Amino acid sequence: MVYELDSNKEVKNDVPQLLIDCSLPSAFIKTIELVKQFNIPLVIATTGLTENELQKLKDLSANVPVVQSSNFSIGVQVLLKVTEMANDVLNDWDVEISETHHRFKKDKPSGTALMIKDKLGSKPVNISSLRLGNIVGDHTITFGGLGDTISITHHAISRRTFAEGILKSAEFVLKKKNGFYSFKEVIFGS
Amino acid sequence: MVYELDSNKEVKNDVPQLLIDCSLPSAFIKTIELVKQFNIPLVIATTGLTENELQKLKDLSANVPVVQSSNFSIGVQVLLKVTEMANDVLNDWDVEISETHHRFKKDKPSGTALMIKDKLGSKPVNISSLRLGNIVGDHTITFGGLGDTISITHHAISRRTFAEGILKSAEFVLKKKNGFYSFKEVIFGS
Amino acid sequence: MVYELDSNKEVKNDVPQLLIDCSLPSAFIKTIELVKQFNIPLVIATTGLTENELQKLKDLSANVPVVQSSNFSIGVQVLLKVTEMANDVLNDWDVEISETHHRFKKDKPSGTALMIKDKLGSKPVNISSLRLGNIVGDHTITFGGLGDTISITHHAISRRTFAEGILKSAEFVLKKKNGFYSFKEVIFGS
Amino acid sequence: MVYELDSNKEVKNDVPQLLIDCSLPSAFIKTIELVKQFNIPLVIATTGLTENELQKLKDLSANVPVVQSSNFSIGVQVLLKVTEMANDVLNDWDVEISETHHRFKKDKPSGTALMIKDKLGSKPVNISSLRLGNIVGDHTITFGGLGDTISITHHAISRRTFAEGILKSAEFVLKKKNGFYSFKEVIFGS
Repeated sequence: MVYELDSNKEVKNDVPQLLIDCSLPSAFIKTIELVKQFNIPLVIATTGLTENELQKLKDLSANVPVVQSSNFSIGVQVLLKVTEMANDVLNDWDVEISETHHRFKKDKPSGTALMIKDKLGSKPVNISSLRLGNIVGDHTITFGGLGDTISITHHAISRRTFAEGILKSAEFVLKKKNGFYSFKEVIFGS
Repeated sequence: MVYELDSNKEVKNDVPQLLIDCSLPSAFIKTIELVKQFNIPLVIATTGLTENELQKLKDLSANVPVVQSSNFSIGVQVLLKVTEMANDVLNDWDVEISETHHRFKKDKPSGTALMIKDKLGSKPVNISSLRLGNIVGDHTITFGGLGDTISITHHAISRRTFAEGILKSAEFVLKKKNGFYSFKEVIFGS
Repeated sequence: MVYELDSNKEVKNDVPQLLIDCSLPSAFIKTIELVKQFNIPLVIATTGLTENELQKLKDLSANVPVVQSSNFSIGVQVLLKVTEMANDVLNDWDVEISETHHRFKKDKPSGTALMIKDKLGSKPVNISSLRLGNIVGDHTITFGGLGDTISITHHAISRRTFAEGILKSAEFVLKKKNGFYSFKEVIFGS
Repeated sequence: MVYELDSNKEVKNDVPQLLIDCSLPSAFIKTIELVKQFNIPLVIATTGLTENELQKLKDLSANVPVVQSSNFSIGVQVLLKVTEMANDVLNDWDVEISETHHRFKKDKPSGTALMIKDKLGSKPVNISSLRLGNIVGDHTITFGGLGDTISITHHAISRRTFAEGILKSAEFVLKKKNGFYSFKEVIFGS
């Protein structure tokens, strides 16, 4: 059973199993309406939602399961989790973050680099940003001690990483009755 | 208070606070005697202990705290822990281990590479072994999905990594009454 | 002025400036015909040409300029050149080649790894082949001495690398009267 | 035949074959005297020589062969040469330099990073400097195009890299009649 919706046409085929929204904030109201109409699970990847819109998703999750995140990359989730764990043990080692992206990227440092830094607590951490050709996106965090180092690298190949995460979330949400979940909970449990 | 013991001479200065044994199996009996004589904590890094000798350490630990491990590198412990955690989440991704050591190393693959493989369960895993000049020891494990990869690398700079681990264990053992502990427990708790 | 030719339809617009053939051996005869008909330069990337077909290209190059290669990646050319140069100086160092590709790749080691090995002379060289998810193609050659190492890595992002090389060859060939050229000559001169 | 000279004692054994000076500028006058006295080749690694002192070495080289450099690492020489060559071909690609050293290093960026930058001509180039634990010294230069990247990495393991370079220079200088040579000429010829 499939229900497809886009800005040009609507195609409705019976009752859908769930709703996946990877579109724009302007679709938000319609998304909420459809979830209510069919009483189905929701996976939503829209970035830039307001506090008010997030609250509407939480209200919705009393009746249906909702997974909401602005980054559905499994690899990034593992990177963040591993960083947190390593930092607990190696908190007296030096630490450096570096990220490399294509020359067209405008922000510096990357949002993901800031998410990594956020996992390291309040200590000052240097971020090196490299801009090179057409690189999709690489992030490395290295902890350095006096006898050895530990590095963790996430290397993005394509946007397919997000599709895989959306699929995992769809499988997750179909097994739930209701509740509001982060993508982190989909991957690691709560 | 220091008590030094080596194969040439014994220097005894009052009662020592703890005993650290990073020597050879042939010193084992003397080590046990000294721990009993002074009733002090023990940190023991001897490799190649027999089942019988390990049992003697466990008997000893009823009265004094004992930390026993054949690898006191904090970095290697973090590598193993992170590998285990990432493998839980990325168990449907491909995985490859590679290790690089100096040209004089005789065993292939390295013992640490086998320890990493052991954390990945029973699936077949390829290990690439590189032998290059004077490299102290590098280990990388990479998980590969269809949209991204995650790599974790341990790079050894010198044997100082072991000294740091022994020191952490000494601090740990001085706070305990008794009990038998692995180095993993020193680093991550039990 | 554009002349497009494919297996379904032919579109002819006036006389073309040059012919670029990145297709299959089955198009070879037609390619030769068109080059002769219009007396224009040729850039040909077809792999698996026979000795006989290569000879036909050389005959053709008496009248028009021809660039022929089975790998139009500028990065791979630089990798091979650098390998050759470093090997001259570091010929008493250890050397290791490693290559990583997607899980769908059937040959092991990769053709490029064998090209690298070929630049190292007759000494035995180990090649490590890793197969991981969706990696487009990475090659690293490392020279290891007793005090340091030198590594050269080529990392492919997409097939665009070949398009860039074809374009460079097109610019090159438009400036020539005739002659048979390799892609290596396009990049480094002869 | 060995002639050893240090700040505490002088040991003279017959006529030496050559003089190697890896000491301090304060030894410079004595070094010149000894080379003249025995009429022997000189390998000199002293950093911070004045223009006047360099001129004295050049005057000396009319009669004996002299190799003078402030960095006798073969790996660094290869890195610089490869950088220059790659930059010629990839001059329209992006380029980034990064260097990692121990936490105790005071200058930023490293002198070697500045030497690499110098090989890239007058274009602006970003240098990322990372400071981590006890890392002896790593330098990477990456060229990034739209379809691929090329990276060259020099990884220092220990100061032994300099000893190897000094030895190569000693072998070189023993085969020369006279002349003033850089270490680059020892490695690559002139």
